[in-house]
Amino acid sequence: MTLPFQTLEWTGDALLLLDQRALPEKETMLRFTDAPGVAGAIRTMVVRGAPAIGVTAAFGLVLSVRADGAAGRPWREAFREAAETIGASRPTAVNLFWAIERMRRAAASLPDDPREARRMLEREAVAIRDEDVEANRRMGSHGAELLPDGASVLTHCNAGALATAGYGTALGVIRAAVAAGKKIHVYVDETRPFLQGARLTAWELMKDGIPCTLITDNMAAKLLGDGKIQAAIVGADRIAGNGDVANKIGTYGVAVLCRAHKVPFYVAAPCSTIDPAIRTGARIPIEERDGGEVTHLMGKRIAPDGVAVCNPAFDVTPARFVSAIVTEKGILRPPLARALRDLFR
Amino acid sequence: MTLPFQTLEWTGDALLLLDQRALPEKETMLRFTDAPGVAGAIRTMVVRGAPAIGVTAAFGLVLSVRADGAAGRPWREAFREAAETIGASRPTAVNLFWAIERMRRAAASLPDDPREARRMLEREAVAIRDEDVEANRRMGSHGAELLPDGASVLTHCNAGALATAGYGTALGVIRAAVAAGKKIHVYVDETRPFLQGARLTAWELMKDGIPCTLITDNMAAKLLGDGKIQAAIVGADRIAGNGDVANKIGTYGVAVLCRAHKVPFYVAAPCSTIDPAIRTGARIPIEERDGGEVTHLMGKRIAPDGVAVCNPAFDVTPARFVSAIVTEKGILRPPLARALRDLFR
Repeated sequence: MTLPFQTLEWTGDALLLLDQRALPEKETMLRFTDAPGVAGAIRTMVVRGAPAIGVTAAFGLVLSVRADGAAGRPWREAFREAAETIGASRPTAVNLFWAIERMRRAAASLPDDPREARRMLEREAVAIRDEDVEANRRMGSHGAELLPDGASVLTHCNAGALATAGYGTALGVIRAAVAAGKKIHVYVDETRPFLQGARLTAWELMKDGIPCTLITDNMAAKLLGDGKIQAAIVGADRIAGNGDVANKIGTYGVAVLCRAHKVPFYVAAPCSTIDPAIRTGARIPIEERDGGEVTHLMGKRIAPDGVAVCNPAFDVTPARFVSAIVTEKGILRPPLARALRDLFR
Repeated sequence: MTLPFQTLEWTGDALLLLDQRALPEKETMLRFTDAPGVAGAIRTMVVRGAPAIGVTAAFGLVLSVRADGAAGRPWREAFREAAETIGASRPTAVNLFWAIERMRRAAASLPDDPREARRMLEREAVAIRDEDVEANRRMGSHGAELLPDGASVLTHCNAGALATAGYGTALGVIRAAVAAGKKIHVYVDETRPFLQGARLTAWELMKDGIPCTLITDNMAAKLLGDGKIQAAIVGADRIAGNGDVANKIGTYGVAVLCRAHKVPFYVAAPCSTIDPAIRTGARIPIEERDGGEVTHLMGKRIAPDGVAVCNPAFDVTPARFVSAIVTEKGILRPPLARALRDLFR
């Protein structure tokens, strides 16, 4: 399946990112040629989604090493600085730190020649990207069995091709189920405040010809109560060692509502999203974003001037609400703490 | 407590309505002088909120009878036609039908002289309005005890002065608790798609100096999980005989989340919102509104062109999720079916 758009594209001397802030209105590729630019793109959500952020960070580090060695200082210094800048862009998705760490390990054994170093770093970033697409495909083939033929599936935020190097995590599972011949309909939470569902997921599914219905986040409970949803599947930004899942704000509510209606709640994420170093979700740093995302929409004010706002970008769903985690290595089932321990053994 | 704004104002020959579609940007009073205009104002949500709709309908019926008798036909004919037009404006809030029915009963015994009839109908509409404000005040004084000093209280949609002839139902209870010296902080669900929380409730509370924090609807679960909410209180559009509550879409989700976190979920509504003729919530007609409310905001498209949408304006919260119903006659506690039976005995 070739998707009719690309989330990110590496040209050899630049990283092109589809500007997700402009979707679905405009499809614009922005060009980044240095690490601070890439860090800014992550921070301002030109690109978002844990796996996509990881891949983007890796290419950002490649860009920190100038192939012509022109920076007038050892490449390791520029690389270290870039790792810090990019690492400070967003705190919650662990894929960012995972990718930086993997690039750091690769960098450790590289020669001092910047040309050679850059070539090897590029090779590592390309591998991270290609492995991500491959992981998504595997998640799809593992997870497709979870979705019954004829099901309406609820998803929150965007865990699609736009959130990864391609294909998607949660939407990858849906794509694979559809590719396997199942009839699947998707209810798309619009996902306030940034509207990733309305702007990105609905757009992506429509491009793919997968039937979907857009709803406001607060309609999911009614649809669940009316028996119109047979499963929910979402992505993740960080999974703790015990199986607690940090994901886009609103995910926890979806999980509680699914439990109350006896509907399975699935998470699809590559192993790079799992952070076994963190024991429980309580230790996952939750990004608080600017209140303007809540009070303004498309540049227009939709709330009284000066109103107090909170805007946590993520929440944590305790493992007990998660029916299964779909990874590229297979489906993890409760008890998740043990399944995760076995996975990393 | 005099509020610094008026939801509706009767001038004797016109009904002035605060245009709630323009809030918080602009405070504009629109003037209506005939019944079709009033029906349109209800349909397009110039005025909304079950009690306010009821009062508006009553004045709309007054306007159907021209004091100069100039319509060239018996006033009863114009009145009957107006009752139909206004009754077709919105289906869910029972206060609309309750007010029309009350005006109909008043009309039945009136003389044929249109001047005299109009004077008597005006008296009835004014009574409906004044009783609504009085009912709100009583709900406040009954309900205030439910909110603990120092509590953060979650509310959904707008059940305030803007939803009534003044003071408010759910916000009336909050106002009364504050007036009684309690420190109350309100978390305001923005309430997609129409943003009654962001545009109306936050505005109303700020005008009143009651501390509030605006959140997107999908943040409530996280706040409940973090122990930051001690009670939820909402209004109602129709309460069935068994205590099932139809209210703004998203209310059911709030109720389920409150139950999952052992936080009380209260409903405040005047007896005119109770429809004992309907046995359960399953029989309450749920208005489906135009999908454009979901895909567009402030005239701007926020979703892909042609996306499928559903837009139920209300949902039904089963009585078992309701901790208490605050009415002007006192607090009804579970089992609500019995409490409601006793109330109407």
